Amino acid sequence: MKLLFCNCDILASDGAGFRVIRNGYLGVGGDTIDYIGTDRPAARYDAEKDMRGKALIPGLVNAHTHAAMCLLRGVGSDLPLQQWLFDKIFPIENRLTADDIEAGTNLALLEMLACGTTSFSDMYFQVPRTAEAVLKAGMKANLCRPLQSFDPHERPEDNFRVGEALELYDGYNGAGNGRILVDFSIHAEYTCTQPLAEYAGKLCSERRGNMHVHLSETKKEHEECIARWGKTPAAWFRDAGDFDSGAFAAHCVAVTDDDLRIFREKGVSVIHNPTSNMKLGSGFAPVQKMLDMGLNVGLGTDGAASNNNLNLFEEMHLAAVIHNGYTGDPTILKPADVLRMATLGGARAQRRADTGELRVGKKADIAAVDLSAPHLTPDFDLPALLVYSAQGSDVCMTMVNGKILYENGEYTTLDRERVLTQVNAAVKRLYA
Amino acid sequence: MKLLFCNCDILASDGAGFRVIRNGYLGVGGDTIDYIGTDRPAARYDAEKDMRGKALIPGLVNAHTHAAMCLLRGVGSDLPLQQWLFDKIFPIENRLTADDIEAGTNLALLEMLACGTTSFSDMYFQVPRTAEAVLKAGMKANLCRPLQSFDPHERPEDNFRVGEALELYDGYNGAGNGRILVDFSIHAEYTCTQPLAEYAGKLCSERRGNMHVHLSETKKEHEECIARWGKTPAAWFRDAGDFDSGAFAAHCVAVTDDDLRIFREKGVSVIHNPTSNMKLGSGFAPVQKMLDMGLNVGLGTDGAASNNNLNLFEEMHLAAVIHNGYTGDPTILKPADVLRMATLGGARAQRRADTGELRVGKKADIAAVDLSAPHLTPDFDLPALLVYSAQGSDVCMTMVNGKILYENGEYTTLDRERVLTQVNAAVKRLYA
Repeated sequence: MKLLFCNCDILASDGAGFRVIRNGYLGVGGDTIDYIGTDRPAARYDAEKDMRGKALIPGLVNAHTHAAMCLLRGVGSDLPLQQWLFDKIFPIENRLTADDIEAGTNLALLEMLACGTTSFSDMYFQVPRTAEAVLKAGMKANLCRPLQSFDPHERPEDNFRVGEALELYDGYNGAGNGRILVDFSIHAEYTCTQPLAEYAGKLCSERRGNMHVHLSETKKEHEECIARWGKTPAAWFRDAGDFDSGAFAAHCVAVTDDDLRIFREKGVSVIHNPTSNMKLGSGFAPVQKMLDMGLNVGLGTDGAASNNNLNLFEEMHLAAVIHNGYTGDPTILKPADVLRMATLGGARAQRRADTGELRVGKKADIAAVDLSAPHLTPDFDLPALLVYSAQGSDVCMTMVNGKILYENGEYTTLDRERVLTQVNAAVKRLYA
Repeated sequence: MKLLFCNCDILASDGAGFRVIRNGYLGVGGDTIDYIGTDRPAARYDAEKDMRGKALIPGLVNAHTHAAMCLLRGVGSDLPLQQWLFDKIFPIENRLTADDIEAGTNLALLEMLACGTTSFSDMYFQVPRTAEAVLKAGMKANLCRPLQSFDPHERPEDNFRVGEALELYDGYNGAGNGRILVDFSIHAEYTCTQPLAEYAGKLCSERRGNMHVHLSETKKEHEECIARWGKTPAAWFRDAGDFDSGAFAAHCVAVTDDDLRIFREKGVSVIHNPTSNMKLGSGFAPVQKMLDMGLNVGLGTDGAASNNNLNLFEEMHLAAVIHNGYTGDPTILKPADVLRMATLGGARAQRRADTGELRVGKKADIAAVDLSAPHLTPDFDLPALLVYSAQGSDVCMTMVNGKILYENGEYTTLDRERVLTQVNAAVKRLYA
């Protein structure tokens, strides 16, 4: 099946950066982009889609989230962090069944597809149910079973999470023609023993895997690590061998310049989560400095319980403005930088070399944005318009691997009403 | 005409604060709310509207903007402030005709109505064209002709803007049954002479008017004022008599505790503009401190050139999270505080005692939010859902004085296509 998008603006890439094509054509053959240009292609397509007044952009990559936590959206808003976690979040998480995880994941997929997200990196539990939901929905995801342990005497191989992580890796890594990738994961330094961190690094390296961690999300976490180990979380993970094969670290708010040099040396990607960092009072990650050092930076929503949505347009908006406010410099973190973080940056953190930009030969992971709304008029500068003016709801189509999964409020692989019914039943039980 | 909204959630007020009514009824008689409750009212209504799955909230008040600047949306994004103003914005503003002001205002009205805004406070020029557009569209607005002068020898009564301001006041204050209110205005301390500020204060006080100013938007402005006059902008305005009758001050980022005490003593409202303050690198206004001192605080988008939209849902979202990030305290600026700023706070700054909350006897200025979207599920806490999870596009109806002006993408008083055509023609000419 070959599909040609006609008369559309295209946020294309040419290797050096974005190149905006006005009123052009983008061809999809199978799961791949096979044409981009201002002229109608000579090749024949089975179908055409008139996209006048719309822009095609690379599908967005939500590079750090906890999808099933959509079931906990809005729980205990505005409590102090510890009270929120221990009194509200953890007791509910302890009651979550595998069916709940499926319902929560599907709710997240509905939401992410509706705002142009084609791939996400998740960290949660009962992961096979998430994997099955993603496979069925046609999306892409990097999944992991995070390891944690508070018992210094426990043998790592006896930790049940290690077994689950390996089972997940063997069962799902590369599933759905590579739509699912399974990462390794340590939840965080403060929830893990040193032997387990070292063991996880070894497992990951042996499989040339990708390691997903939380790192220096708060000053407290960062300083308590230094008090405990005489080194920062970044150095602790490095010394445990967790950055030897490939890794990405969420938050990185309280990081030092030395930490950033560790990331550069070990090729660790940083995932910026601006809404979560603001809402929970964690602070401002030094994102411009990361970019200036040449680090790869992706963008994530974190879980819906600390956001409270999975809307990457909001993350782009926050990323583009809050650092100006904090540093007093309105010229930093330009729209193109932010768009790159939300697309190619995330795809690279996921180690997906075949997506994250609109270029011939890349997978057809595409979002279409309707530019006809009053708040998107006039349109001088497409990246600025997308980052500063657009809402997630301006997305009118989301395509993954050449297949349209969402268009104008309708889903092709997910049953919206059925998911919402399941979610409401789960919520009624969980919060009874 | 009496209209009954049925089966809706209602963000009502009871004097002490918000009171969420689930699955209730709200009656509108003429331009006024005449019933709110969980039971069906005994009175007879001419028509009913089933609002199942929707919430009625007070119409939002955009308490500081420059509506017609929608024509300059996205111009010169990410330039340093002075370069942006002098190289990009001012040259275009110098070319704006009265027709352009009408087109730009109508674009702003389309955008504001689509995200639940029922009233706005504007500061710009060619104001009669804005007034006529607002009257025709059925919205509410506080309009002003800002005064400025750089010539210390100029007699204030010879300043042409003074003439325009008085003509505007005489011609439009109270027009449309009070939908238009005309305020007095000094653009800012740094663009005004002391004699003109004193003269403006006198004109305003004589008419018991309301004074709209920019104040301490940046540290630079604040400190240069102190260097010039030996006092802060707040003290300078107070001493010129500009706060004697009623006033509201936009931005107030670099204010001191003494400035806040001046505001309290003189009853000056503060208008918080979080996106603009972030995007332009101005910084963090001490909003929680203002609320703790009992000041009235409203919320504004500022003009679209420094935002780049007029979406108060985005302002609410930013206001609710950025101060947590800046102070490290996740418990400040709660959703109800932020919603109050965006509704009652703005209405009070506009000196409209008859609106800003859903209560029997208040004007029927109402927005309806469709809660059925995946990103608004589950719904535990309506204020948190509106502030943290909702998008402006979740608004499905906007009513002003009992008249529906917007519903499900359609406008009843504005011709969307005609406005967009006018805007695109103006843009083509202005940027040729």
